[in-house]
Parts: sequence; structure tokens; C-alpha cells
Amino acid sequence: MEESGLERTKKLREEAMRRHLLYRGKMQVMPMCSIKELNDFSVYYTPGVAAPCQEIEKTKEKVNELTNKWNTVAVVSDGTRVLGLGNIGPEAGLPVMEGKALLFKYLGGVDAFPICLDTKKPDEIIQAVKWLQPSFGGINLEDISNPKCFYILDALKEKMDIPVWHDDQQGTAVVTLASLMNALKLVDKKMKDVSIAIIGTGAANIAISRLLFVAGINPKNCLAVDSKGILYPTREDFFGNKKYKYAEKFNLSKITNPEKKKGKIAEALDGADICIALSKSGPGVIKPKWIKTMNNDAIVFACANPIPEIWPEEAKKAGAKIVATGRSDFPNQTNNSVVFPGLFRGVLDVQAKTITDTMCIIAAESLAKFARKNGINENYIIPTMEETDAFIEEAVAVGMQAQKEGLTKLKLNRSQLHKKAKTMIFNAQESVKLLMKKKLIPNY
Amino acid sequence: MEESGLERTKKLREEAMRRHLLYRGKMQVMPMCSIKELNDFSVYYTPGVAAPCQEIEKTKEKVNELTNKWNTVAVVSDGTRVLGLGNIGPEAGLPVMEGKALLFKYLGGVDAFPICLDTKKPDEIIQAVKWLQPSFGGINLEDISNPKCFYILDALKEKMDIPVWHDDQQGTAVVTLASLMNALKLVDKKMKDVSIAIIGTGAANIAISRLLFVAGINPKNCLAVDSKGILYPTREDFFGNKKYKYAEKFNLSKITNPEKKKGKIAEALDGADICIALSKSGPGVIKPKWIKTMNNDAIVFACANPIPEIWPEEAKKAGAKIVATGRSDFPNQTNNSVVFPGLFRGVLDVQAKTITDTMCIIAAESLAKFARKNGINENYIIPTMEETDAFIEEAVAVGMQAQKEGLTKLKLNRSQLHKKAKTMIFNAQESVKLLMKKKLIPNY
Repeated sequence: MEESGLERTKKLREEAMRRHLLYRGKMQVMPMCSIKELNDFSVYYTPGVAAPCQEIEKTKEKVNELTNKWNTVAVVSDGTRVLGLGNIGPEAGLPVMEGKALLFKYLGGVDAFPICLDTKKPDEIIQAVKWLQPSFGGINLEDISNPKCFYILDALKEKMDIPVWHDDQQGTAVVTLASLMNALKLVDKKMKDVSIAIIGTGAANIAISRLLFVAGINPKNCLAVDSKGILYPTREDFFGNKKYKYAEKFNLSKITNPEKKKGKIAEALDGADICIALSKSGPGVIKPKWIKTMNNDAIVFACANPIPEIWPEEAKKAGAKIVATGRSDFPNQTNNSVVFPGLFRGVLDVQAKTITDTMCIIAAESLAKFARKNGINENYIIPTMEETDAFIEEAVAVGMQAQKEGLTKLKLNRSQLHKKAKTMIFNAQESVKLLMKKKLIPNY
Repeated sequence: MEESGLERTKKLREEAMRRHLLYRGKMQVMPMCSIKELNDFSVYYTPGVAAPCQEIEKTKEKVNELTNKWNTVAVVSDGTRVLGLGNIGPEAGLPVMEGKALLFKYLGGVDAFPICLDTKKPDEIIQAVKWLQPSFGGINLEDISNPKCFYILDALKEKMDIPVWHDDQQGTAVVTLASLMNALKLVDKKMKDVSIAIIGTGAANIAISRLLFVAGINPKNCLAVDSKGILYPTREDFFGNKKYKYAEKFNLSKITNPEKKKGKIAEALDGADICIALSKSGPGVIKPKWIKTMNNDAIVFACANPIPEIWPEEAKKAGAKIVATGRSDFPNQTNNSVVFPGLFRGVLDVQAKTITDTMCIIAAESLAKFARKNGINENYIIPTMEETDAFIEEAVAVGMQAQKEGLTKLKLNRSQLHKKAKTMIFNAQESVKLLMKKKLIPNY
């Protein structure tokens, strides 16, 4: 079984190399207005274009009515933490950012453009994104290393007039919360009662724990583990200034683990209801014998990329009731890909200024509810990327919530939001299908 | 006649407002690879995508084989000199940059993306473009004010590994040279003999004069005129440090006008063979009585946007033999739109590192030759935007020249270049037509 998982990964990698070489790029830039004659250029370009320019000069906000800014998102990375591959640089990160843009368009109808920056300095990344603001309706930060990603996100959220999102933080947090909501329903446990072993304290798990605590998990029931073991605030690596450098982790050490328990992953899992692992690529990071020591009806999220910390079948054999991974080739894909396309769809359609925690929780609830309507079970706690209606429902929920919080420039009711999201996503998917059918996208 | 020109402009502006409001954007981002099932995402995104990432990490150059970087151009502006509208800001410039991206794709098959920067400081613009380099195969600077545009272009050409082009300088220079080549053939005059009145000393005319002098025009036969009159180096506004601030203009004052002639446009046109005006929007900037004082078979380029310095018919009545403007609704549209799509097509197909003056001259010759093959006359000295084959020929000529100069990463022969350019442009145009036919691009 391990072999089949590894074998599958190898085949996907080979197929990826083959197709990337043939296509030489996954995303293109394409007109979205009709072109029939030379005269059209006099309308879209000089001299006609001067009129919309002057309208925007008079009233800056009109840029969202007269250009595609409103539906355009920058996928911004410095390539310092790409998938599980580490600091591979901005050029090597580009295939991931193009892939992200592909998911944005196909699943959410969002025009996302990959921006890989040739700087790793936090303040320069912030500066670059600020300068880019006029062209974009939203910013999706991606694969930026920890801890600077926290600082960059917080600074940009404060300084920008458009929503800024760090998918490795917020996207992962939303999907984990959504999956957890349904997993808890299946095992009939309550958010406020369960104990969690948080394995890995990277950007994802820091953000997940933050959102889970807002959503009702009691931090006192949690233990967080990094490569050095279970966190507690008097641990040597928080001495002196280090507690400021790793402020988010230090904070986690203070609010979890009230009994100052020590140990490693094994000790953290002992007696836990839930394991949320987003640590390092497996297999073998989590051992079956440790799963055996968890509570009855254990829930295991083994979400490392590209290989889960423990293979799902191994975890199940060791007693886990529900297992989720980050991969599409196992059940319960708890991956941010099911979050950001629909969430951004809703955010852009109402021109929300920011994305709040409550909007995140609403997004998670919407996804969880969608799965429940279909009937959840141990192998289906979260919608898949193929369930387009889930994205539409999510967009509606997020758009409504943003309006409720008074954060939007536009007012749309539930049915208008539904229609808008559906049209945008449908058009994106139909356009791709049509270009494929006529071989303008070749079938490699 | 003046009225009809103004009336036409007004109608184009109204139609532009109508369509910009309906489309809410002219360019979208679209997948260029086939998507048939959920499994495709495991190839284009995680886990498969890790393979091309790691290839690029090992060999950075492979980013041009495994992503769309090679065919992607940033259309960069700070909005400080948009068309003839002046410093209207980056948001108000966005409709123009989207329009530019549209021409890039439809006429050249190039994936161009509008980047409007929220800074006007030259060194910050340079810094922003440098940080953006990993995502792009080329940079097209646009509508950046003079004189900083010279400094920015020169600095970026030196610092970047990808070609950097300022279309208002180089694009305008190439198309003017191409038109002039054919105009001179029609009146049977020689490049080295003719005298030119250069009206306006903005970025365009500075760059035009530079390229014309390289191509064989004798600067001693030229007079350049700005708002203060004919240039000469001892003029008051070059006193002290000002000669450094306006270095390009000062240089022009030194190499032209050997007799230190003084005066304004009228005096400059008196006895000139050619008028090249890219000054301020007309009509009435150049008076018919001044045209009457030009030499026999006078050639008049009245290329201000959106309104020519003198209406073509007026100029003709006053004795001009050949008149060109920047507009598509008059004959002889001498606008950079017929240059950059084909030129960049050639540059990107061979992965040229830079764009030299000699590549520019070859591009101009190719365009001029294409028109001659069709048969030139007073109303047809330059191909129109509808003559797609002209762009293909230009791409081939530029691609061959870049290889000859040893500036390319790829080697392609003439027939390979032709096939590549034709396919890229054909696919772009067919894709738009197909999306229009199936109403995925609505017919507004």
C-alpha cells in the first residue's frame, strides 16, 4: 500500500514533466471582449480608450467598473517555501503559481496571475505588493516561508485597500475546520470537548490552531509539537529574544499544554481525540503504534505534501476512524484547493475590502454543510474539487457574510450572488472545454 | 472635415465607454492546458508539479521550457503620461494597458499582462520591474513621463536578463522609420539628403531622431522644436544643471541645427522636406500656411494622440504629398501598434536577451518591404493592423537578426520562425473568434 502511494506519486511526477514540457506554460492571457474589425481597436485602444481613462481619473473607484481589476488576483510568492520542497527560488516556484492560477480560474472563475518575486526580504515583498495594487482586486500570498509570512500578511492586510490572503495559512485553516466539523459529527464529539495533537508548527498549523480556537476548540485541550517536541513556554528555544522572533509559536506554547507536558509526537498523540499533522513529507513521520494510543474514534489529518505523515490505510489499521490527507488520490482531500476559488469568488463579487476570521468560519461551515447535504461518511467529510456547486455555495455564503460585516463596496442579495458565481465559474470551464474541443488547447 | 474627425473621435469615445462598462475588463487569464478530470490537477498542481519545480531548481534556464515565462510580457506603467492625457495615475492608465495587452495577444500571440505601479519614482519603478523578472520573458514600458523614461529604460536594459522595451520610444521610432522609408521611395528622395523638422521633443521624437540618425538621416539637416522653439545648445533652458536634467534634448540641440537657426514651428518647417510631429493633440498645432513653405513633395507625419497636429486633408490641400497620422481612421497609420506585436513575437521565439537598434532597423525594413510587396502609394506606406502576415514577416526578420547578433538562447531557422509566429498568432485569433462564436465572449 505504501508502495502504491509512492508509485502513484512517481507516475504523477513523470506525467507532470511530460505535460509541462509539451505545453510550456499552463496559463495564458486572453481577450474577453469581441474583436471583429480594425475599428474595434480604436474603441479598446486609442483614441476611444481615453474616455474610460478620464472617467477613472475623475473617480478612482470606477476602475472596478471599467477594467478587469475587480476580478484579478495576484498569486505572489518569493519561492522560499514551495510545497514541501523548501527554498527553491522564484523561478522554480513558477509552475506551482501557474497551477494555482489554473485552479483559481477553473474552479472559481477568478483571473489569477502568477507573480514570482526576485526578493526574499519581508519589507521588500510588502513594498512590491503595495506597488502592484492598482492592477489587482486581491492578493493571494503563496509559499512564503515562516515566520516572515505572518509579518507580511499582517502588514499587507493593514496597508492595502484590497483583500490579502495567505493561502498556506488561511486556506488551510478553513479546509481543516470544514473537515473537522463533519468528522466530529460522524464520531459524535463536540468542538469544545475534544483534545488535539497539533503536529508541526509551520504557517499552516499556526493558522489552523488560531481559527480552530475562534471556532470553539479549547486551546487548553491541545498540545502542539514541532521538531524539538511538545511546546511549552519555558522551553529553551523561547529564551531571550527568540520568543519575539517566533512570536506565533511562542503564543501557541502559552495557551496550549496547561500541564506542561513534555515529549515528542508519540506523547502528544497519547490520549488525543484528533491529530492534525501538517509537518514534513512522510511516510513514517507518524507511526501506527502511536495512533493506537489515541482515544476511541480517533480523527487523523495527515496533510503533509507530497506524502502524508502516515499512509491512510496504515492509520486506519491502527484504529483511526477517519483519516484525511492533502491529496486528491485519497478520500477526504483536506486541501486549500477546495477553499480559495469559491471564497475569492464571493469576496470579489461584492468587492470586499478584507477577509475576516468570521468570513473564514462561514466559508468552512458552507463547505461542511454542502458535504452533509450529499451525506457524509468516513470517506467523504469534505467536498471534492469536482463539486462545482460547493464553490458556488461557498461564494454566496462568503459574499453575504462580508456584506453583513459592512466590508463591501457592492450590495448583492443571495440570488444575485448565486447567479454571478455560477456564471463566472461556468464561463471559465466552458471556455476551456471549447478551446480543447477545437484543439486550440491541444490534447497532450 | 475637421468636424468629421472630431465627431468620429467623440463617437469612438462613447462606444468605448459603453463597451468598457459592459465587459468590465478586456483581458482575462485562461488555462492553456487540457483539463478533463480531477487527476489533471494532481499533474498541474500538487503532487506532480513538484517535478518541474525541482528541474528548474537544478537548472534555472528550464523555467522557459516548463512555464509560460518565455511568452509572457509585463506592460508596465506608472500612469504619468497616458496617451495625450498626461499624469492621470496608475488606475486611470489601466484601460490603456489592458488595451495594449489585447493588441499583444491578438496581433502577436504574446501573453501580455498589465502592471500599473503605484509609484512614480524612477528608482522605485526600476526596483519593481527587477523584482518582477522571474515571471516574465520581456518588459514593455508604457506611458511613463519624460525625461525619467530614458533613465528607466537605460537602467533596466543594463540590469535585466530579459528584453526591456519602451514602446513610446522604440516602437514609435520603428514605425516612423518604416513609414519614412516608403514615403521617401514615393517622392524619390534619399535618406542622407533630406531635411527634417522634428516637432515635439518628447520621448517619442527623441527616440525617433536617434533611430533615424542611425538609419542614415543626417542630423545636420534637422531642426528640432519644442514648446519654446527651435533647439540650440546655448538656449537659456540648457543653462547650468538643466542640460543634465534634459540630457537627451540637450544632445539633440548639439547635433542638429548647425546654423543655430532660431524660431518656432513655422521657421522650422520653412524649406523642410519632412515634418515629423509628435507634439500635442491638435488640430491647429500646425497651420496649413506653414506646410505651404515646405519643399516640394513634402512628407508630413502628424502623429499626436488623439487628434493630429493638423488634419490630413488640410495638410494635403496645403501641398503635402504624403500625410501620416497615429490613427486607424486615416490612411498611413504610423502607430507603434504595427510594430511591437510582431517584434516581440520574434524576440520571444528565439529568447533574445535584449533588443538592439539594428534589430529595430531590421523590423522597420521588414514592415516597409511588406507594404512595398503590396504596392505602396500616397495612402499606403505602412501595413495596417489587419495585415497579420506583416507581423509574421517582422517576427522572422527580428528573430533572424537577433541570432545574427549572437543575442539569443535558441536557434531557429527562417522557416521554423515563420511557422512558430504563424501558429502563435493564428491560435490567439482563432481562440478569440471561437469564444465569440459560442458567446463565451458576449457580443456587446
